[in-house]
Amino acid sequence: MKQPKVAVVMGSDSDLPVVKKCIDALKKFEIDVDVNVISAHRTPYEAEAFAKNAEKDGFEVIIAAAGKAAHLGGVLAAYTTLPVIGIPIKSSTMDGLDSLLSMVQMPKGIPVATVAIDGAENAGILAAQILALKYKNISMLLKQHKEDMANEVNEKNKKIKEEF
Amino acid sequence: MKQPKVAVVMGSDSDLPVVKKCIDALKKFEIDVDVNVISAHRTPYEAEAFAKNAEKDGFEVIIAAAGKAAHLGGVLAAYTTLPVIGIPIKSSTMDGLDSLLSMVQMPKGIPVATVAIDGAENAGILAAQILALKYKNISMLLKQHKEDMANEVNEKNKKIKEEF
Amino acid sequence: MKQPKVAVVMGSDSDLPVVKKCIDALKKFEIDVDVNVISAHRTPYEAEAFAKNAEKDGFEVIIAAAGKAAHLGGVLAAYTTLPVIGIPIKSSTMDGLDSLLSMVQMPKGIPVATVAIDGAENAGILAAQILALKYKNISMLLKQHKEDMANEVNEKNKKIKEEF
Amino acid sequence: MKQPKVAVVMGSDSDLPVVKKCIDALKKFEIDVDVNVISAHRTPYEAEAFAKNAEKDGFEVIIAAAGKAAHLGGVLAAYTTLPVIGIPIKSSTMDGLDSLLSMVQMPKGIPVATVAIDGAENAGILAAQILALKYKNISMLLKQHKEDMANEVNEKNKKIKEEF
Amino acid sequence: MKQPKVAVVMGSDSDLPVVKKCIDALKKFEIDVDVNVISAHRTPYEAEAFAKNAEKDGFEVIIAAAGKAAHLGGVLAAYTTLPVIGIPIKSSTMDGLDSLLSMVQMPKGIPVATVAIDGAENAGILAAQILALKYKNISMLLKQHKEDMANEVNEKNKKIKEEF
Amino acid sequence: MKQPKVAVVMGSDSDLPVVKKCIDALKKFEIDVDVNVISAHRTPYEAEAFAKNAEKDGFEVIIAAAGKAAHLGGVLAAYTTLPVIGIPIKSSTMDGLDSLLSMVQMPKGIPVATVAIDGAENAGILAAQILALKYKNISMLLKQHKEDMANEVNEKNKKIKEEF
Amino acid sequence: MKQPKVAVVMGSDSDLPVVKKCIDALKKFEIDVDVNVISAHRTPYEAEAFAKNAEKDGFEVIIAAAGKAAHLGGVLAAYTTLPVIGIPIKSSTMDGLDSLLSMVQMPKGIPVATVAIDGAENAGILAAQILALKYKNISMLLKQHKEDMANEVNEKNKKIKEEF
Amino acid sequence: MKQPKVAVVMGSDSDLPVVKKCIDALKKFEIDVDVNVISAHRTPYEAEAFAKNAEKDGFEVIIAAAGKAAHLGGVLAAYTTLPVIGIPIKSSTMDGLDSLLSMVQMPKGIPVATVAIDGAENAGILAAQILALKYKNISMLLKQHKEDMANEVNEKNKKIKEEF
Repeated sequence: MKQPKVAVVMGSDSDLPVVKKCIDALKKFEIDVDVNVISAHRTPYEAEAFAKNAEKDGFEVIIAAAGKAAHLGGVLAAYTTLPVIGIPIKSSTMDGLDSLLSMVQMPKGIPVATVAIDGAENAGILAAQILALKYKNISMLLKQHKEDMANEVNEKNKKIKEEF
Repeated sequence: MKQPKVAVVMGSDSDLPVVKKCIDALKKFEIDVDVNVISAHRTPYEAEAFAKNAEKDGFEVIIAAAGKAAHLGGVLAAYTTLPVIGIPIKSSTMDGLDSLLSMVQMPKGIPVATVAIDGAENAGILAAQILALKYKNISMLLKQHKEDMANEVNEKNKKIKEEF
Repeated sequence: MKQPKVAVVMGSDSDLPVVKKCIDALKKFEIDVDVNVISAHRTPYEAEAFAKNAEKDGFEVIIAAAGKAAHLGGVLAAYTTLPVIGIPIKSSTMDGLDSLLSMVQMPKGIPVATVAIDGAENAGILAAQILALKYKNISMLLKQHKEDMANEVNEKNKKIKEEF
Repeated sequence: MKQPKVAVVMGSDSDLPVVKKCIDALKKFEIDVDVNVISAHRTPYEAEAFAKNAEKDGFEVIIAAAGKAAHLGGVLAAYTTLPVIGIPIKSSTMDGLDSLLSMVQMPKGIPVATVAIDGAENAGILAAQILALKYKNISMLLKQHKEDMANEVNEKNKKIKEEF
Repeated sequence: MKQPKVAVVMGSDSDLPVVKKCIDALKKFEIDVDVNVISAHRTPYEAEAFAKNAEKDGFEVIIAAAGKAAHLGGVLAAYTTLPVIGIPIKSSTMDGLDSLLSMVQMPKGIPVATVAIDGAENAGILAAQILALKYKNISMLLKQHKEDMANEVNEKNKKIKEEF
Repeated sequence: MKQPKVAVVMGSDSDLPVVKKCIDALKKFEIDVDVNVISAHRTPYEAEAFAKNAEKDGFEVIIAAAGKAAHLGGVLAAYTTLPVIGIPIKSSTMDGLDSLLSMVQMPKGIPVATVAIDGAENAGILAAQILALKYKNISMLLKQHKEDMANEVNEKNKKIKEEF
Repeated sequence: MKQPKVAVVMGSDSDLPVVKKCIDALKKFEIDVDVNVISAHRTPYEAEAFAKNAEKDGFEVIIAAAGKAAHLGGVLAAYTTLPVIGIPIKSSTMDGLDSLLSMVQMPKGIPVATVAIDGAENAGILAAQILALKYKNISMLLKQHKEDMANEVNEKNKKIKEEF
Repeated sequence: MKQPKVAVVMGSDSDLPVVKKCIDALKKFEIDVDVNVISAHRTPYEAEAFAKNAEKDGFEVIIAAAGKAAHLGGVLAAYTTLPVIGIPIKSSTMDGLDSLLSMVQMPKGIPVATVAIDGAENAGILAAQILALKYKNISMLLKQHKEDMANEVNEKNKKIKEEF
């Protein structure tokens, strides 16, 4: 069976500190990650080419991260029927509301599956959940991850109970 | 091959006029739809049972629609590793901003794939895009749908050019 | 007469610096405090168990603190008829508006008594006001506290009058 | 044992259509309701007198409903240590955000337990939850109400399943 | 000298009632108007082709009107160095804030000259102001229009003074 | 003729760094300033007494500064017919929007003349403008101040022109 | 003694239905009202002339009402040291937030005394409060008005108590 | 052929660190830049004189930068038919939303071409795009700049691909 492969596209390399958590999450779920800097506005031809060929290039999910007027998710989604996940990046003004609304308020016909502002790790988990429908090992890793998260919270609960 | 099956869960039956477009979209892509009224707050046990069993009941994607403090998507996602799509419903105050933020701003670990406020049709299309990774016929229907949308816009373009 | 007991539940141990003021306030009013880290999304079973048993475990008020899509208050309230007080925690994006709306905009049937963003001390005072209906000593402590606050402001007034 | 008694105070009689649901909820839980029109700004002496005497007049909870710069809850809370529940009323501008923030963002020392914009029914339920700590019959009525709500949702679920 | 020509592009024909005022304004300034329905998301190839060829097709200014996640202006601007004017259209949710932020918050390198929400007439006037740098007749028409507007206000001033 | 006198009231002494600019502005216009720390919520009796007696105590304008649910202006205005100027103070959450709306959105009958968030200097100037109707020397000082401001801007203009 | 005179300036005659309540309030306090339609943007020379001459034309307060980017108050205030009261008018988009922020957020040096969105009556009362410093009869009328308002609320309180 | 000339006007010299990027962008496109500090409120006569004479002084585009209640763009546009570009400057409160709305929400008749909050570089590029309609060398420089931007993004893409 072929290896699951996800494309992570960020609109600017300044988004990397946030996006890094998405890449790490995908790797944790044993998903091949292809990392890209493509700007919907400054490199529209590259954006088009990337999205148009994404399916035949073996990608199954696209994750797009962008700030301000964050069109990247919508622009990629226009050229493909692959699921596109959007990560709105907070920039120096508007507290992230601009990128959130630019991503999530897509008009009918072309959805972008939007996660929280700067919610890069969740974008990776969502991609894994999507791929788990097809790849059983990811499904198991997700279940393990859910258990691990619960254990981690329970550990913290124990620790706080000792403190108070 | 088994039939793709999606659960549509709304927090209140008053959400149906919006959610109807999601159901229609899913049917257009030949996906089995199971429609539910489950409240995260008034029927928490049903919500838990539904989400916990969703995978073994054959569901592959869950779509949750809710208004105001729209916890439904997050609550269902807590009990399953299936992808959960959230439709924030606009109610009589706050112009939909409350349900949008309640759905999309999920903390790390448990994503909800959020679409636009009242974006029910897009939730259906997003579910189809997810299932298309596994079901080739849905992939073809999505490509046809993309073409149909383009043709429809182009028709309107022609018509408007006659008018002006 | 039994000792008044309040449960303080935070969604993440990173909320502790804010929540600490709530714990301190409760102790000042001689209320037993049980501090917990329970995530509505990462430990939903623990959340359910905690809320379902809260009454018979002797709790009379539950205080829930959470950030972003702050579902914790609503999720606990779904499983109990005890009063649930919500503290929306400000996180790194959206200036606290997301957690405020996720907590306060509860649908009909399941209220969460919401205080200000990061208003942890007030959550403790509110719990004391609720318990004072039943425990006369808390009522007296609250009246003393009100007097103390007035005196403190009046002191500051005197001091500023000396300065100008 | 004395009868539980709640004061409902609205800032303007134009708030009555919303506040009515609060009164009905209180009556459903067999709580004595005293309905008042008192403006924090136009009748400040009445507001002061009311709040100052509320406890010795036998009230155990105060519910304040107001729109725009909704100071009523805070003003009443300044004169009493009884729990004060605030209902922010949506008026013709700002979609209710003004009254919500004016009510919920109380400075430290004087909490107002805020419910959703126009969330009058929940204010009544919250008052009942508070009183249930002391009045066992209200506790039982709340449990029954929780069951009734669940049954109502489950009925709607059945009906919608017949439709689809 | 060649005739000034402006392209008006709307993302959906449902935007026409608002956009109509833009077309009328352009005609008042004797500018050739080419009206188009092109969706950045549903007809991305048409959007690209249109913008890429706009300059050699004789257009000197492009006006883009779109609602919700209003990417149209940014997408067209990505493919041309012609000035692009954006009209954010108010749709049924978010009061126009979503389309405003999606249009105006463009990242560096690719500006969209944004006017008020539903400010279609001003988009036409702005296009005329831009073209007036080159076409003297438009400059004179704009000055006349400014005078007419002043006269109209002054007339209304006279009328209201009679009333009071 | 009696000396013009303005009361500056802040809800907390932590507001002083902002309010200081108001005091300085008033002194520049040769107005007697009486500085107070009075909390609408923690010292309601002092607030009432202060406002009720303000006129007979010789005050002609009251300036109220407060953050979060900034009721102070409205509460003082309830007890007097003197003009009350409100300064919304930005606190650690909500970027000042909460205090702005709590101050400016006063219900009919009781206005608060609101200036910008943290706009303390302008509150002082506004008080001077009001008093200038009666005190000719303040009128002259205001005209001089207007000229000084213009000169200062013109100086900066000259300096920047040397730089570029 | 000269008669108090207030100028009411609206940016568009479409603001009259709201502004009417301001005119009525001023007349109730026996103040001469001069009603004007002057646009800061379409009739800037008239705005300048009006404001520059306002003081010597006998005006003591200026009230400016405008919607959207409501510059009118600020523009008039730039040319006079008279107190300028601003009424932000709600228009078809942005729920009045745009006009509120455009009016209230004035930079230092030039205040606009802003009242609530559509708060025309309060603008009239505020003008009366300002003039009452100089005109004793207005002071008495304001005190009477305050009493009348209290009586009106108390009447409504009596009526509602009969109903419940 | 005459040299293209753009006026950059800022409301306060504290805006210079942001506005500097606009000046640099204009120079990169070989446009003469005239830098000014003019306040719409503190130097209204200078603002009027500047805007009224801008066209005959040889300016072809005006760029106005201002924060808070950012009236500068609208005030200048009132006196000229030249295109006016607005840069909303973020100040210490409201995250830039106030200046954005004050600039972009201009009433009909007087547009201000608004760019992103603090989007100074884009204001310069937009001015260049406008002037390029008339000055062929600017058109070529813009095309080169577009290519350079694409190359820069592509370089970053290569670099990131080496990293992951």
